[in-house]
Amino acid sequence: MKKIYFTPGPTELYPGAQEDLLEALDKNIFSINHRSPEFMEIYRQTAGSLKKLMNIPDSFHIFFLSSATECMDRIIMNCSAKDTFHFVNGAFAERFYKTAIDLKRNAVKAEAEYGAGFDFDNVKIENNPEVICITQNETSTGVAIDVENIYKLKKDYPNAVIAVDIVTSAPYVNLDFNLIDCAFFSVQKGFGLPAGLGVLMVNDRCIEKAAQLQNSETGIGSYHNFLTLLENAKKYQTSETPNVLGIYLLGKVCDHFLKEGIDNIRKSTDEKAELVYDFFDKHNSYKPFVKNPADRSKTILVIDTGDRQSQIKKALSENGYIAGSGYGKLKDTQIRIANFPMHNLNDVKKILEVVNKTY
Amino acid sequence: MKKIYFTPGPTELYPGAQEDLLEALDKNIFSINHRSPEFMEIYRQTAGSLKKLMNIPDSFHIFFLSSATECMDRIIMNCSAKDTFHFVNGAFAERFYKTAIDLKRNAVKAEAEYGAGFDFDNVKIENNPEVICITQNETSTGVAIDVENIYKLKKDYPNAVIAVDIVTSAPYVNLDFNLIDCAFFSVQKGFGLPAGLGVLMVNDRCIEKAAQLQNSETGIGSYHNFLTLLENAKKYQTSETPNVLGIYLLGKVCDHFLKEGIDNIRKSTDEKAELVYDFFDKHNSYKPFVKNPADRSKTILVIDTGDRQSQIKKALSENGYIAGSGYGKLKDTQIRIANFPMHNLNDVKKILEVVNKTY
Repeated sequence: MKKIYFTPGPTELYPGAQEDLLEALDKNIFSINHRSPEFMEIYRQTAGSLKKLMNIPDSFHIFFLSSATECMDRIIMNCSAKDTFHFVNGAFAERFYKTAIDLKRNAVKAEAEYGAGFDFDNVKIENNPEVICITQNETSTGVAIDVENIYKLKKDYPNAVIAVDIVTSAPYVNLDFNLIDCAFFSVQKGFGLPAGLGVLMVNDRCIEKAAQLQNSETGIGSYHNFLTLLENAKKYQTSETPNVLGIYLLGKVCDHFLKEGIDNIRKSTDEKAELVYDFFDKHNSYKPFVKNPADRSKTILVIDTGDRQSQIKKALSENGYIAGSGYGKLKDTQIRIANFPMHNLNDVKKILEVVNKTY
Repeated sequence: MKKIYFTPGPTELYPGAQEDLLEALDKNIFSINHRSPEFMEIYRQTAGSLKKLMNIPDSFHIFFLSSATECMDRIIMNCSAKDTFHFVNGAFAERFYKTAIDLKRNAVKAEAEYGAGFDFDNVKIENNPEVICITQNETSTGVAIDVENIYKLKKDYPNAVIAVDIVTSAPYVNLDFNLIDCAFFSVQKGFGLPAGLGVLMVNDRCIEKAAQLQNSETGIGSYHNFLTLLENAKKYQTSETPNVLGIYLLGKVCDHFLKEGIDNIRKSTDEKAELVYDFFDKHNSYKPFVKNPADRSKTILVIDTGDRQSQIKKALSENGYIAGSGYGKLKDTQIRIANFPMHNLNDVKKILEVVNKTY
């Protein structure tokens, strides 16, 4: 039986991926030069479709990197010389913080309990940070942050670059890019693509900051510094030979999603999430990990299953569904169910039926 | 007509690529978690097959990065704090040098004329470099460096890490890894794979150097520093979600090449190269760019065509073959013909026939 992946990512491929891959083979996408007009047209189309899908202003620049982790690294290198601030409530926010530490920045963090959001009114940001890093949708815990809180950061700390991790919420998250400075995701999550491509969207404040820091002692890195990336992006090119297939397929899936309509995708995502949370809120043994409904991610649904986790995963697998385990120390007592655009309502219902029969 | 790509890379896919891609789809390679036993097995098999194919000692570590350009960046960051030395005789060697400059190192270079090798006896390396960078096969000019000269560097400068760019010579190049410290390539060249994967092979000297520099002021980077890469590689994992498909296909193509036999591949490469160079040495109008036969790359064959370049490329294309243009300022007056394992003798002969008819 061919399984359907409800893992947080890598996850199920988007419908049409196989067809688009075969078309790519047929069109020699794998062999074309990355300085050729053919590649430039792919870059242009993909960036255009992505901007349309996620309502990204024309003033933003789209950079193709290799992973979301790389995006964190490049943001820290290009937008800070010394001080960064991090909202940390899970493993991926912690990774952003750790990236800044590795890069010898004075990184300060505010921590929230795992499975909870932040009390934004009481978070003190006192180190005059050059970048404030926030994980809008924390993949390890299934906590999502209301974007209004992020917009307020930009208002309250006008000197900082506001960097937003939307790795597992894109394209679902309805983010007003005018009220942040940069955001990033990787394609093997909500876009249902093969892994190996990170997408970083930056505004001119990020570019200006990089230009200021270019001649600093630490510099801003080499081939993937924002100035080199921008110089190439303006020509619809990349600094190095990129993951051409990934960029091509991202454009294709954006076009598929545009046809489906982002509002429909969001509505359907909300419906599926409600169904799952509702089911587990009422369940006797298994409960949503995130207690406060306002903190719950709509795309990464984390369920406390205690010592029944392996039985549930086994039963799901036998019925054709692969769910994710918990993350880190919660690996064996939770399941994580991804709720991305390619996950069907019918399959979600079947998953709940299977869980219902698992005691 | 489906064209055959003789471009320096991205280039023609290896035979079997389509079949392996479809098998990957069927096996859910795109959806598996990069911390799963399935992925670890892919990493283990690919690293094993690559080591076997290229006779890489067990003491070397195989890191999967995103491009050869990234490999340059990480080598400089992890193996030097201050001083680097570069042999520069083309655009890609220059990029290695430029990377060190961007990373604020005191980079010193020895330059050779484009299209020529180095007079190694007269190159003075006087800055006590922590890394000596050398481009064994310069893709922009078609000059290859005899590996014996590289081995001698290691003997003469025992304190330096010897870093070797074999981007377009792997797997053809017969490199004794015991006589260098690190080497790298990207997969869209001699392995005929989709772009988006760089492979870096390092010995323990590189690791020790990174460990020494970890607490220096500049540090050694974040998720892709050698220590983090090694910690993950030991578990057959990667720091971030990698290009899983690329790693999978690399293993597959290594196995195909192993079946073919690396000696047969080398012999066939030599034969095809000889045919091409011989043809152009005798040609009235078009000549090999690299004058000294000892300096000529066997895998990147660069031909001076003067103002007939576009006619030749057009005639080749009409016959189903895509040749590369020259690089940089020689873009319009040269063709570059890649001579990789997937390029057939019969096609090479046909290319020469087409050129022969083009006046």
